[in-house]
Amino acid sequence: MSGNFVKLVEVGPRDGLQNEPYTVPTSLKLDLIDRLGRTGLKVIESTSFVSDRAIPQMADAEDVIAGLKRRAGIRYPALVPNERGYDRARSVGVDEVALFTAASEAFNQHNINCTIEESLRRFAPVVHRARNDGVRVRGYVSTVLGCPYQGQVPIADVVRVAEALFEAGCEEISLGDTIGVGTPRKAAEMVRAVGASIPIAQLAVHFHDTYGQALANIMTCLDLGVRVVDSSVAGLGGCPYARGATGNVATEDVIYMLEGVGMETGIDLLEMARTGDWIAGELGRPRSRAGQAVLKRH
Amino acid sequence: MSGNFVKLVEVGPRDGLQNEPYTVPTSLKLDLIDRLGRTGLKVIESTSFVSDRAIPQMADAEDVIAGLKRRAGIRYPALVPNERGYDRARSVGVDEVALFTAASEAFNQHNINCTIEESLRRFAPVVHRARNDGVRVRGYVSTVLGCPYQGQVPIADVVRVAEALFEAGCEEISLGDTIGVGTPRKAAEMVRAVGASIPIAQLAVHFHDTYGQALANIMTCLDLGVRVVDSSVAGLGGCPYARGATGNVATEDVIYMLEGVGMETGIDLLEMARTGDWIAGELGRPRSRAGQAVLKRH
Repeated sequence: MSGNFVKLVEVGPRDGLQNEPYTVPTSLKLDLIDRLGRTGLKVIESTSFVSDRAIPQMADAEDVIAGLKRRAGIRYPALVPNERGYDRARSVGVDEVALFTAASEAFNQHNINCTIEESLRRFAPVVHRARNDGVRVRGYVSTVLGCPYQGQVPIADVVRVAEALFEAGCEEISLGDTIGVGTPRKAAEMVRAVGASIPIAQLAVHFHDTYGQALANIMTCLDLGVRVVDSSVAGLGGCPYARGATGNVATEDVIYMLEGVGMETGIDLLEMARTGDWIAGELGRPRSRAGQAVLKRH
Repeated sequence: MSGNFVKLVEVGPRDGLQNEPYTVPTSLKLDLIDRLGRTGLKVIESTSFVSDRAIPQMADAEDVIAGLKRRAGIRYPALVPNERGYDRARSVGVDEVALFTAASEAFNQHNINCTIEESLRRFAPVVHRARNDGVRVRGYVSTVLGCPYQGQVPIADVVRVAEALFEAGCEEISLGDTIGVGTPRKAAEMVRAVGASIPIAQLAVHFHDTYGQALANIMTCLDLGVRVVDSSVAGLGGCPYARGATGNVATEDVIYMLEGVGMETGIDLLEMARTGDWIAGELGRPRSRAGQAVLKRH
């Protein structure tokens, strides 16, 4: 079913920088994306066309996309929350978008002030237009293993939301443990349940390292056949629900583990470690574990 | 074969503080051990009777043991490198000791200036005396997944050293990835190989988080039936071969994962997180991931 190749979706420039406490200059974002593009990555999620009132860190979305030095063979998707975001994204030539909803009713209410059903209904016209435009659509389901507002999230709700996104036309569904509370057994149960109705090749996993569990969770999901993993260079991104906490799993840590278990990513770990070291220095944040260790060895 | 209970061996006061760059006052060590004793831990490795020229951080070994406020049901083993260390340990009433060797020939040469065979021969009289004295002996095999001097370490060498310690009379063999380079598949191969001749119940795993791999490795070993895990509160301990790198896996991170996968440790995670937060503050070092996240939630 699954080969040895794992596709990493780099989310540092979007999910990472969106959750860092400061706003990064556009030129630094473009430099980061360009350096990431030299590592061997094939997908770099680059920005988010959300309201700049909601997320001021992403107010320069048009400038980021317009300023990209696109490299052959690399995709640069952007997140769009609704039709207005889709229009903005398309106006600067975005050819792949990501949609975002949650498996937790309470999280949707707090975050986007609507029910899950309403959020899915809002997406329908975006997906419809994207398909007509030949634009690839990825769907994010967040809070798949826990919610900062309601606590437990029933697996049935994760399955229902993932299926809705998939049936609406999303080509890839990313299952996100937004607050990093998941552990391997629960991650496996959740992925198995979603995998019963959606081909495993079209699922991605998106873990945060808030409790240090991300790699253990990823390993368990690899064993189930998952071959798409979201990660963030240097672990960029905090957790908006626990200030100061560790954020996204670091791309360097993921690559190191994947190489160790005989998987291929096509990414140069040393180059990624250098990029992580550079951006961590620019932002004054801690280095990733594997990134730091790899650089000490060289 | 294996139940739901996982025994954690807390190595912070010994392996942790031994590899921190500064020497900690005896009173602080005793405070740390006392606080750890209130968390539900059953085994706290407390000090090492090594030469104070070799490891000045442990020069107060006698004072630490003499100053312990022993709690019922908790064991306080100490590391002894040779007969002289054994004599010192016994003189202050140590009733459980640990021996330390490596699976890597180059590491033994660099570290204790003898071959593996010689180090095993040195241990023989210690183990013999310990058995006569009714003293429990644990054996550490280090560099089981890689060596800072020779690189790769053949699994056959790990098996040979582990078997020798076991046959000499060690009741528990701790398999240590000293430089943290291991990944889950290699960890599993190594544990399977050692487990072919030593009962899995008598094996412990000892991972460092230098590359962030420790929890993923532990999870894989749990799946193989391992039920003894070494860890260090707050992740105390650097890596002497990579200054500044992350050291031992943090006890808080391990407990969080074990609870999440339905294992029992008998340890209060919140109390451990508070202890980790306190010692990290005292030493001016980073907090563990789960420890930090758990405290933010409370």
